[in-house]
Amino acid sequence: EMPNPWWHLRGLCWVPPRQPSGMSRFCHSGPGKDYALPNSSWSKDMTSQFNKFMEMSKSGLWQRISSHRRLMYDLPGGNLLFSFPKFYPQSDSRFFCRNLDVEGLGFEYVMFWNQSEKRMICIFQPGPYLEGYTGFVHGGCIATIIDNAFIGCALFTANLDINYKAPLPLGSVVLVDTKVDKTEGRKTFISGTVQRADGKMVYAHATLLFIHMDPQTSSQLEEASKL
Amino acid sequence: EMPNPWWHLRGLCWVPPRQPSGMSRFCHSGPGKDYALPNSSWSKDMTSQFNKFMEMSKSGLWQRISSHRRLMYDLPGGNLLFSFPKFYPQSDSRFFCRNLDVEGLGFEYVMFWNQSEKRMICIFQPGPYLEGYTGFVHGGCIATIIDNAFIGCALFTANLDINYKAPLPLGSVVLVDTKVDKTEGRKTFISGTVQRADGKMVYAHATLLFIHMDPQTSSQLEEASKL
Repeated sequence: EMPNPWWHLRGLCWVPPRQPSGMSRFCHSGPGKDYALPNSSWSKDMTSQFNKFMEMSKSGLWQRISSHRRLMYDLPGGNLLFSFPKFYPQSDSRFFCRNLDVEGLGFEYVMFWNQSEKRMICIFQPGPYLEGYTGFVHGGCIATIIDNAFIGCALFTANLDINYKAPLPLGSVVLVDTKVDKTEGRKTFISGTVQRADGKMVYAHATLLFIHMDPQTSSQLEEASKL
Repeated sequence: EMPNPWWHLRGLCWVPPRQPSGMSRFCHSGPGKDYALPNSSWSKDMTSQFNKFMEMSKSGLWQRISSHRRLMYDLPGGNLLFSFPKFYPQSDSRFFCRNLDVEGLGFEYVMFWNQSEKRMICIFQPGPYLEGYTGFVHGGCIATIIDNAFIGCALFTANLDINYKAPLPLGSVVLVDTKVDKTEGRKTFISGTVQRADGKMVYAHATLLFIHMDPQTSSQLEEASKL
Protein backbone atom coordinates (compact mmCIF):
# COMPACT_ATOMS: atom_id res chain seq x y z
CA GLU A 1 0.00 0.00 0.00
CA MET A 2 1.19 3.47 -0.85
CA PRO A 3 1.27 5.47 2.41
CA ASN A 4 0.34 8.78 0.78
CA PRO A 5 -0.34 9.04 -2.91
CA TRP A 6 0.55 12.71 -3.06
CA TRP A 7 3.92 13.28 -4.60
CA HIS A 8 5.61 16.18 -6.22
CA LEU A 9 8.55 16.95 -8.39
CA ARG A 10 11.01 19.48 -7.02
CA GLY A 11 14.25 19.83 -8.90
CA LEU A 12 13.09 16.86 -11.00
CA CYS A 13 12.77 14.67 -7.93
CA TRP A 14 9.44 13.51 -6.56
CA VAL A 15 9.10 13.90 -2.81
CA PRO A 16 6.01 13.78 -0.59
CA PRO A 17 4.38 17.20 -0.29
CA ARG A 18 3.23 18.98 2.84
CA GLN A 19 -0.37 19.97 3.33
CA PRO A 20 -0.44 23.67 2.45
CA SER A 21 -1.46 25.78 5.40
CA GLY A 22 -4.86 27.35 5.04
CA MET A 23 -5.76 24.97 2.23
CA SER A 24 -8.82 23.58 3.92
CA ARG A 25 -10.14 27.09 4.45
CA PHE A 26 -10.12 27.87 0.74
CA CYS A 27 -10.68 24.56 -0.97
CA HIS A 28 -14.13 23.39 -0.13
CA SER A 29 -14.39 20.12 -1.97
CA GLY A 30 -10.98 18.60 -1.28
CA PRO A 31 -8.91 16.56 -3.67
CA GLY A 32 -11.49 13.83 -4.23
CA LYS A 33 -10.54 10.75 -6.16
CA ASP A 34 -7.16 9.89 -7.60
CA TYR A 35 -7.76 9.60 -11.35
CA ALA A 36 -4.47 7.83 -11.97
CA LEU A 37 -5.84 4.48 -10.82
CA PRO A 38 -7.63 1.81 -12.88
CA ASN A 39 -11.34 2.12 -13.55
CA SER A 40 -13.81 0.03 -15.53
CA SER A 41 -13.25 2.06 -18.71
CA TRP A 42 -9.64 0.98 -18.97
CA SER A 43 -9.03 -1.52 -21.73
CA LYS A 44 -7.12 -4.74 -21.20
CA ASP A 45 -4.04 -3.15 -22.84
CA MET A 46 -4.24 -0.11 -20.57
CA THR A 47 -4.59 -2.20 -17.44
CA SER A 48 -1.81 -4.52 -18.48
CA GLN A 49 0.57 -1.57 -19.05
CA PHE A 50 -0.45 -0.15 -15.68
CA ASN A 51 0.23 -3.47 -13.94
CA LYS A 52 3.61 -3.73 -15.64
CA PHE A 53 4.71 -0.33 -14.36
CA MET A 54 3.26 -0.96 -10.90
CA GLU A 55 5.32 -4.15 -10.78
CA MET A 56 8.42 -2.18 -11.78
CA SER A 57 7.58 0.38 -9.11
CA LYS A 58 8.09 -2.15 -6.34
CA SER A 59 11.86 -1.72 -6.56
CA GLY A 60 11.43 2.06 -6.29
CA LEU A 61 12.82 2.61 -9.80
CA TRP A 62 9.48 3.93 -11.00
CA GLN A 63 6.95 5.97 -9.04
CA ARG A 64 3.31 6.38 -9.91
CA ILE A 65 2.18 10.03 -9.96
CA SER A 66 -1.18 10.75 -8.38
CA SER A 67 -3.66 12.96 -10.22
CA HIS A 68 -6.63 14.84 -8.78
CA ARG A 69 -9.30 17.28 -9.90
CA ARG A 70 -6.95 20.21 -9.53
CA LEU A 71 -3.23 20.23 -10.18
CA MET A 72 -2.51 21.93 -6.86
CA TYR A 73 -3.48 18.77 -4.99
CA ASP A 74 -0.59 17.04 -6.70
CA LEU A 75 1.88 19.84 -6.09
CA PRO A 76 4.01 20.42 -3.01
CA GLY A 77 2.54 22.45 -0.18
CA GLY A 78 5.36 24.89 -0.33
CA ASN A 79 4.92 25.53 -4.05
CA LEU A 80 5.15 29.17 -4.99
CA LEU A 81 1.84 28.90 -6.80
CA PHE A 82 0.10 28.47 -3.49
CA SER A 83 1.08 32.01 -2.73
CA PHE A 84 -1.90 33.26 -4.73
CA PRO A 85 -4.71 33.07 -2.20
CA LYS A 86 -6.93 35.00 -4.58
CA PHE A 87 -7.10 31.93 -6.80
CA TYR A 88 -8.28 29.62 -4.04
CA PRO A 89 -11.88 30.84 -4.18
CA GLN A 90 -12.08 29.48 -7.74
CA SER A 91 -13.01 26.17 -6.22
CA ASP A 92 -15.01 25.36 -9.34
CA SER A 93 -11.77 25.16 -11.33
CA ARG A 94 -10.72 21.78 -12.67
CA PHE A 95 -7.45 20.51 -14.03
CA PHE A 96 -7.90 20.47 -17.81
CA CYS A 97 -7.16 16.75 -18.19
CA ARG A 98 -9.45 15.76 -15.30
CA ASN A 99 -12.52 17.85 -16.05
CA LEU A 100 -14.90 15.05 -17.07
CA ASP A 101 -16.66 13.00 -14.44
CA VAL A 102 -17.73 10.03 -16.54
CA GLU A 103 -14.88 7.55 -16.71
CA GLY A 104 -13.51 6.67 -20.13
CA LEU A 105 -14.82 9.66 -22.08
CA GLY A 106 -11.78 11.90 -21.92
CA PHE A 107 -8.16 11.67 -20.83
CA GLU A 108 -7.55 8.32 -19.16
CA TYR A 109 -3.91 8.29 -18.18
CA VAL A 110 -1.40 7.51 -15.50
CA MET A 111 2.16 8.76 -15.26
CA PHE A 112 5.20 6.98 -13.85
CA TRP A 113 8.41 8.80 -12.98
CA ASN A 114 11.87 7.28 -13.22
CA GLN A 115 14.21 9.45 -11.17
CA SER A 116 17.47 7.82 -12.25
CA GLU A 117 16.66 8.26 -15.94
CA LYS A 118 14.82 11.57 -15.39
CA ARG A 119 12.10 10.09 -17.51
CA MET A 120 8.31 10.19 -17.35
CA ILE A 121 6.16 7.51 -18.97
CA CYS A 122 2.50 8.30 -19.39
CA ILE A 123 0.10 5.48 -20.32
CA PHE A 124 -2.70 7.21 -22.24
CA GLN A 125 -6.06 5.97 -23.47
CA PRO A 126 -7.90 8.80 -25.27
CA GLY A 127 -11.68 8.57 -25.01
CA PRO A 128 -14.40 9.53 -27.51
CA TYR A 129 -14.75 13.09 -26.14
CA LEU A 130 -11.28 13.97 -27.43
CA GLU A 131 -12.28 13.80 -31.07
CA GLY A 132 -10.85 15.93 -33.87
CA TYR A 133 -11.48 14.37 -37.27
CA THR A 134 -14.06 11.61 -37.08
CA GLY A 135 -12.62 8.69 -35.13
CA PHE A 136 -9.31 10.36 -34.35
CA VAL A 137 -7.82 12.27 -31.44
CA HIS A 138 -7.58 16.08 -31.74
CA GLY A 139 -3.98 17.21 -32.18
CA GLY A 140 -4.39 19.52 -29.21
CA CYS A 141 -4.88 16.51 -26.90
CA ILE A 142 -1.58 15.09 -28.00
CA ALA A 143 0.08 18.44 -27.28
CA THR A 144 -1.67 18.47 -23.89
CA ILE A 145 -0.62 15.00 -22.79
CA ILE A 146 2.99 15.66 -23.77
CA ASP A 147 3.05 19.05 -22.03
CA ASN A 148 1.46 17.43 -19.00
CA ALA A 149 4.35 15.17 -18.18
CA PHE A 150 6.42 17.90 -16.58
CA ILE A 151 3.70 20.29 -15.45
CA GLY A 152 4.13 19.13 -11.88
CA CYS A 153 7.75 20.30 -11.78
CA ALA A 154 7.11 24.01 -11.15
CA LEU A 155 8.28 24.41 -14.74
CA PHE A 156 6.78 26.90 -17.17
CA THR A 157 6.57 25.66 -20.76
CA ALA A 158 8.45 28.12 -22.94
CA ASN A 159 8.42 26.15 -26.19
CA LEU A 160 6.60 23.10 -27.48
CA ASP A 161 7.47 21.75 -30.92
CA ILE A 162 5.48 18.73 -32.10
CA ASN A 163 5.83 16.68 -35.25
CA TYR A 164 2.67 14.71 -35.85
CA LYS A 165 3.50 11.49 -37.70
CA ALA A 166 0.14 9.74 -37.95
CA PRO A 167 -3.40 10.34 -36.76
CA LEU A 168 -4.14 8.64 -33.44
CA PRO A 169 -7.39 6.63 -33.34
CA LEU A 170 -9.73 7.22 -30.38
CA GLY A 171 -9.55 4.39 -27.88
CA SER A 172 -5.93 3.46 -28.65
CA VAL A 173 -3.50 2.86 -25.82
CA VAL A 174 -0.23 4.69 -26.26
CA LEU A 175 2.86 5.43 -24.23
CA VAL A 176 3.97 9.03 -23.94
CA ASP A 177 7.66 8.71 -23.20
CA THR A 178 9.38 11.96 -22.16
CA LYS A 179 12.84 12.49 -20.73
CA VAL A 180 15.14 15.27 -19.70
CA ASP A 181 17.86 15.68 -22.31
CA LYS A 182 19.78 18.42 -20.54
CA THR A 183 19.52 21.22 -18.01
CA GLU A 184 21.18 24.60 -18.41
CA GLY A 185 20.61 26.97 -15.52
CA ARG A 186 16.86 27.48 -15.29
CA LYS A 187 16.26 25.80 -18.65
CA THR A 188 15.27 22.16 -18.95
CA PHE A 189 15.27 20.50 -22.37
CA ILE A 190 12.90 17.59 -22.80
CA SER A 191 12.08 15.31 -25.70
CA GLY A 192 9.24 12.88 -26.06
CA THR A 193 7.41 10.46 -28.29
CA VAL A 194 3.84 9.21 -28.44
CA GLN A 195 3.91 5.63 -29.60
CA ARG A 196 2.23 2.29 -29.40
CA ALA A 197 3.39 0.15 -26.48
CA ASP A 198 5.14 -2.27 -28.84
CA GLY A 199 7.04 0.66 -30.40
CA LYS A 200 5.89 -0.28 -33.90
CA MET A 201 3.90 2.89 -34.52
CA VAL A 202 4.99 6.43 -33.65
CA TYR A 203 2.22 9.03 -33.59
CA ALA A 204 4.17 12.11 -32.60
CA HIS A 205 7.60 13.31 -31.62
CA ALA A 206 8.12 16.46 -29.59
CA THR A 207 10.75 18.67 -28.02
CA LEU A 208 10.01 20.97 -25.12
CA LEU A 209 11.83 23.75 -23.37
CA PHE A 210 10.80 24.43 -19.81
CA ILE A 211 11.84 27.32 -17.60
CA HIS A 212 12.06 26.79 -13.85
CA MET A 213 9.75 29.17 -12.07
CA ASP A 214 11.29 31.34 -9.40
CA PRO A 215 10.01 34.26 -7.31
CA GLN A 216 10.46 36.51 -10.36
CA THR A 217 8.27 34.26 -12.49
CA SER A 218 5.89 34.23 -9.60
CA SER A 219 5.63 38.03 -9.81
CA GLN A 220 5.08 37.71 -13.56
CA LEU A 221 2.21 35.34 -12.90
CA GLU A 222 0.84 37.80 -10.38
CA GLU A 223 1.19 40.63 -12.90
CA ALA A 224 -0.42 38.57 -15.64
CA SER A 225 -3.34 37.77 -13.41
CA LYS A 226 -4.07 41.46 -12.88
CA LEU A 227 -4.34 42.28 -16.59
CA GLU B 1 -30.29 36.01 -40.83
CA MET B 2 -27.80 33.40 -41.87
CA PRO B 3 -29.59 30.97 -44.23
CA ASN B 4 -27.55 27.95 -43.23
CA PRO B 5 -24.86 28.18 -40.63
CA TRP B 6 -22.91 25.22 -41.96
CA TRP B 7 -19.86 26.22 -43.83
CA HIS B 8 -16.69 24.49 -44.74
CA LEU B 9 -13.26 25.28 -45.88
CA ARG B 10 -12.18 23.63 -49.11
CA GLY B 11 -8.97 24.86 -50.64
CA LEU B 12 -9.00 27.51 -47.92
CA CYS B 13 -12.37 28.80 -49.01
CA TRP B 14 -15.51 28.35 -46.96
CA VAL B 15 -18.50 27.19 -48.99
CA PRO B 16 -21.83 25.72 -47.87
CA PRO B 17 -21.63 21.93 -47.42
CA ARG B 18 -24.03 19.33 -48.72
CA GLN B 19 -25.88 17.02 -46.37
CA PRO B 20 -23.87 13.80 -46.48
CA SER B 21 -25.91 10.93 -47.82
CA GLY B 22 -26.78 8.34 -45.24
CA MET B 23 -25.88 10.70 -42.42
CA SER B 24 -29.23 10.55 -40.71
CA ARG B 25 -29.00 6.77 -40.68
CA PHE B 26 -25.78 6.73 -38.70
CA CYS B 27 -25.87 9.87 -36.60
CA HIS B 28 -28.64 9.48 -34.10
CA SER B 29 -28.48 12.70 -32.18
CA GLY B 30 -27.93 15.22 -34.98
CA PRO B 31 -25.77 18.29 -34.81
CA GLY B 32 -27.61 19.93 -31.90
CA LYS B 33 -26.75 23.47 -30.91
CA ASP B 34 -24.27 25.76 -32.56
CA TYR B 35 -21.72 26.53 -29.84
CA ALA B 36 -20.26 29.49 -31.74
CA LEU B 37 -23.07 31.80 -30.67
CA PRO B 38 -23.31 33.96 -27.53
CA ASN B 39 -24.50 32.45 -24.27
CA SER B 40 -24.92 33.82 -20.76
CA SER B 41 -21.41 32.78 -19.74
CA TRP B 42 -19.81 35.17 -22.23
CA SER B 43 -18.23 38.19 -20.61
CA LYS B 44 -18.90 41.73 -21.79
CA ASP B 45 -15.52 41.72 -23.57
CA MET B 46 -16.27 38.44 -25.32
CA THR B 47 -19.69 39.62 -26.48
CA SER B 48 -18.35 42.95 -27.60
CA GLN B 49 -15.65 41.25 -29.72
CA PHE B 50 -18.29 38.95 -31.17
CA ASN B 51 -20.54 41.88 -32.07
CA LYS B 52 -17.63 43.69 -33.69
CA PHE B 53 -16.84 40.75 -35.97
CA MET B 54 -20.52 40.11 -36.73
CA GLU B 55 -20.77 43.76 -37.78
CA MET B 56 -17.73 43.31 -40.05
CA SER B 57 -19.32 40.14 -41.44
CA LYS B 58 -22.18 42.11 -42.96
CA SER B 59 -19.99 43.12 -45.88
CA GLY B 60 -19.04 39.47 -46.43
CA LEU B 61 -15.38 40.16 -45.61
CA TRP B 62 -15.58 37.97 -42.53
CA GLN B 63 -17.62 34.81 -42.06
CA ARG B 64 -18.58 33.26 -38.76
CA ILE B 65 -17.76 29.54 -38.58
CA SER B 66 -20.39 27.34 -36.99
CA SER B 67 -19.35 24.77 -34.40
CA HIS B 68 -21.25 21.68 -33.27
CA ARG B 69 -20.79 18.69 -30.97
CA ARG B 70 -18.85 16.81 -33.62
CA LEU B 71 -16.50 18.30 -36.18
CA MET B 72 -18.12 16.37 -39.01
CA TYR B 73 -21.25 18.52 -38.72
CA ASP B 74 -19.13 21.51 -39.66
CA LEU B 75 -17.34 19.75 -42.51
CA PRO B 76 -18.51 19.41 -46.09
CA GLY B 77 -20.73 16.49 -46.96
CA GLY B 78 -18.33 15.34 -49.59
CA ASN B 79 -15.38 15.33 -47.22
CA LEU B 80 -13.19 12.28 -47.58
CA LEU B 81 -13.51 11.65 -43.88
CA PHE B 82 -17.13 10.75 -44.36
CA SER B 83 -15.91 7.73 -46.27
CA PHE B 84 -15.34 5.89 -43.00
CA PRO B 85 -18.78 4.54 -42.17
CA LYS B 86 -17.26 2.43 -39.43
CA PHE B 87 -16.77 5.59 -37.40
CA TYR B 88 -20.38 6.71 -37.61
CA PRO B 89 -21.57 4.30 -34.92
CA GLN B 90 -19.36 6.16 -32.43
CA SER B 91 -22.23 8.54 -31.94
CA ASP B 92 -21.06 9.15 -28.38
CA SER B 93 -17.98 10.91 -29.74
CA ARG B 94 -17.63 14.62 -29.13
CA PHE B 95 -15.43 17.25 -30.66
CA PHE B 96 -12.69 17.86 -28.09
CA CYS B 97 -13.40 21.59 -27.74
CA ARG B 98 -17.15 21.08 -27.42
CA ASN B 99 -17.31 18.20 -24.97
CA LEU B 100 -18.72 20.05 -21.95
CA ASP B 101 -22.42 20.76 -21.69
CA VAL B 102 -22.38 23.47 -19.05
CA GLU B 103 -21.74 26.81 -20.71
CA GLY B 104 -18.72 28.78 -19.61
CA LEU B 105 -16.72 25.96 -18.04
CA GLY B 106 -14.52 25.01 -20.96
CA PHE B 107 -13.67 26.35 -24.39
CA GLU B 108 -15.94 29.30 -25.20
CA TYR B 109 -14.92 30.47 -28.64
CA VAL B 110 -16.09 31.58 -32.03
CA MET B 111 -14.07 31.71 -35.23
CA PHE B 112 -14.33 34.19 -38.08
CA TRP B 113 -12.75 33.54 -41.48
CA ASN B 114 -11.44 36.23 -43.77
CA GLN B 115 -11.10 34.73 -47.23
CA SER B 116 -9.24 37.62 -48.88
CA GLU B 117 -6.58 37.64 -46.16
CA LYS B 118 -6.69 33.84 -45.67
CA ARG B 119 -6.90 34.63 -42.00
CA MET B 120 -8.85 33.11 -39.12
CA ILE B 121 -9.61 35.07 -35.97
CA CYS B 122 -10.80 33.07 -32.98
CA ILE B 123 -12.29 34.91 -30.00
CA PHE B 124 -11.52 32.70 -27.02
CA GLN B 125 -12.67 32.82 -23.40
CA PRO B 126 -11.11 29.92 -21.48
CA GLY B 127 -13.26 28.69 -18.59
CA PRO B 128 -12.28 27.29 -15.17
CA TYR B 129 -12.21 23.67 -16.40
CA LEU B 130 -9.16 24.39 -18.55
CA GLU B 131 -6.85 24.89 -15.60
CA GLY B 132 -3.16 24.01 -15.51
CA TYR B 133 -1.36 25.88 -12.73
CA THR B 134 -3.78 27.41 -10.26
CA GLY B 135 -5.69 30.21 -11.95
CA PHE B 136 -4.07 29.75 -15.35
CA VAL B 137 -4.92 27.99 -18.60
CA HIS B 138 -3.18 24.66 -19.36
CA GLY B 139 -0.63 25.07 -22.17
CA GLY B 140 -2.33 22.24 -24.02
CA CYS B 141 -5.49 24.34 -24.40
CA ILE B 142 -3.53 27.06 -26.08
CA ALA B 143 -2.05 24.50 -28.46
CA THR B 144 -5.56 23.17 -29.06
CA ILE B 145 -7.20 26.48 -29.86
CA ILE B 146 -4.40 27.40 -32.26
CA ASP B 147 -4.50 24.01 -33.99
CA ASN B 148 -8.26 24.31 -34.18
CA ALA B 149 -8.31 27.28 -36.49
CA PHE B 150 -7.56 25.24 -39.57
CA ILE B 151 -8.89 21.84 -38.54
CA GLY B 152 -11.93 22.36 -40.77
CA CYS B 153 -9.79 22.62 -43.89
CA ALA B 154 -9.25 18.90 -44.48
CA LEU B 155 -5.69 19.64 -43.39
CA PHE B 156 -3.59 17.28 -41.28
CA THR B 157 -1.34 19.04 -38.77
CA ALA B 158 2.22 17.94 -39.47
CA ASN B 159 4.05 20.34 -37.17
CA LEU B 160 3.05 22.69 -34.38
CA ASP B 161 5.68 24.91 -32.80
CA ILE B 162 4.53 27.15 -29.96
CA ASN B 163 6.43 29.75 -28.00
CA TYR B 164 4.63 30.50 -24.78
CA LYS B 165 5.31 34.09 -23.73
CA ALA B 166 3.20 34.49 -20.59
CA PRO B 167 0.73 32.39 -18.60
CA LEU B 168 -2.87 33.03 -19.64
CA PRO B 169 -5.29 33.64 -16.73
CA LEU B 170 -8.56 31.67 -16.72
CA GLY B 171 -11.50 33.82 -17.78
CA SER B 172 -9.44 36.14 -20.00
CA VAL B 173 -10.69 37.03 -23.46
CA VAL B 174 -8.06 36.66 -26.13
CA LEU B 175 -7.86 36.74 -29.89
CA VAL B 176 -6.22 33.83 -31.64
CA ASP B 177 -5.11 35.34 -34.92
CA THR B 178 -3.87 32.81 -37.51
CA LYS B 179 -3.12 33.34 -41.18
CA VAL B 180 -1.76 31.45 -44.14
CA ASP B 181 1.79 32.59 -44.83
CA LYS B 182 2.34 30.46 -47.92
CA THR B 183 1.26 27.34 -49.73
CA GLU B 184 3.64 24.95 -51.46
CA GLY B 185 1.95 22.04 -53.16
CA ARG B 186 0.10 20.13 -50.44
CA LYS B 187 1.84 22.08 -47.68
CA THR B 188 0.25 25.09 -46.02
CA PHE B 189 2.34 27.26 -43.68
CA ILE B 190 0.43 29.13 -41.01
CA SER B 191 1.47 31.46 -38.22
CA GLY B 192 -0.54 32.69 -35.30
CA THR B 193 -0.56 34.65 -32.08
CA VAL B 194 -2.66 34.49 -28.95
CA GLN B 195 -3.03 38.00 -27.63
CA ARG B 196 -5.25 40.38 -25.76
CA ALA B 197 -7.77 42.19 -27.95
CA ASP B 198 -5.93 45.48 -27.47
CA GLY B 199 -2.70 43.83 -28.65
CA LYS B 200 -0.84 44.93 -25.52
CA MET B 201 -0.17 41.42 -24.22
CA VAL B 202 0.99 38.45 -26.27
CA TYR B 203 0.54 35.04 -24.62
CA ALA B 204 1.83 32.78 -27.36
CA HIS B 205 3.21 32.77 -30.85
CA ALA B 206 3.02 29.70 -33.05
CA THR B 207 3.88 28.36 -36.48
CA LEU B 208 2.06 25.43 -38.03
CA LEU B 209 2.62 23.23 -41.03
CA PHE B 210 -0.45 21.55 -42.43
CA ILE B 211 -0.60 18.88 -45.10
CA HIS B 212 -3.64 18.72 -47.36
CA MET B 213 -5.32 15.36 -47.06
CA ASP B 214 -5.88 13.47 -50.27
CA PRO B 215 -7.09 9.95 -51.04
CA GLN B 216 -3.65 8.65 -50.09
CA THR B 217 -3.85 10.29 -46.68
CA SER B 218 -7.31 8.87 -46.48
CA SER B 219 -5.86 5.37 -46.88
CA GLN B 220 -3.30 6.20 -44.21
CA LEU B 221 -6.11 7.15 -41.87
CA GLU B 222 -7.85 3.92 -42.75
CA GLU B 223 -4.65 1.97 -42.09
CA ALA B 224 -4.06 3.78 -38.83
CA SER B 225 -7.55 2.99 -37.67
CA LYS B 226 -6.94 -0.74 -38.11
CA LEU B 227 -3.85 -0.84 -35.94
